[in-house]
Amino acid sequence: MSETSTNPFDHADIDDAIHGRLRLGIMAYLSAVSPAIFGELKEKVNATDGNLSTHLRKLEDAGYVEIEKRFEGRRPQTRIHLTKSGRAAWIGYLARMRALLDAAE
Amino acid sequence: MSETSTNPFDHADIDDAIHGRLRLGIMAYLSAVSPAIFGELKEKVNATDGNLSTHLRKLEDAGYVEIEKRFEGRRPQTRIHLTKSGRAAWIGYLARMRALLDAAE
Repeated sequence: MSETSTNPFDHADIDDAIHGRLRLGIMAYLSAVSPAIFGELKEKVNATDGNLSTHLRKLEDAGYVEIEKRFEGRRPQTRIHLTKSGRAAWIGYLARMRALLDAAE
Repeated sequence: MSETSTNPFDHADIDDAIHGRLRLGIMAYLSAVSPAIFGELKEKVNATDGNLSTHLRKLEDAGYVEIEKRFEGRRPQTRIHLTKSGRAAWIGYLARMRALLDAAE
């Protein structure tokens, strides 16, 4: 996100790593609940396993989430954590989107 | 947009025709200024001619904008109008995004 932009309609200022619909749902949910369990997140954002994995990998590549594989008793469990950098990016995204939506209302 | 959904994180409820970054910028600008002149819109959303034309065509296909070619004196001019259905879709999109952002704050 450009800090110097004063034009709320400039599409290039929207963080593409977050903006995709599924990734947006993931980031929004994680900003409220982190860590989240894979199955719970999948249900919340209404994704398939494969689709969720693909988009989690993109967020992991951006440094916005960390994926933890562990055992809960004998069952494997995947937990997704929002990183510090992910939270900062989310806050920037929120501000950017609010500016855009406010400018249009 | 599903009217019955009560889950703000469901990504499928976000209108894909609007959500793409450039189309979002276009719709936001048109919701404030309609009709807009092609060159003015291009500058506001920070797009190239080709890119803007491509995404305007998608919005036209969705029925959200109308593209008018006319002459301003001797110079050809393209004006873009937000349609009634485009405005309704925009209002739905705004409500959907606000619900998502609010749920995450």
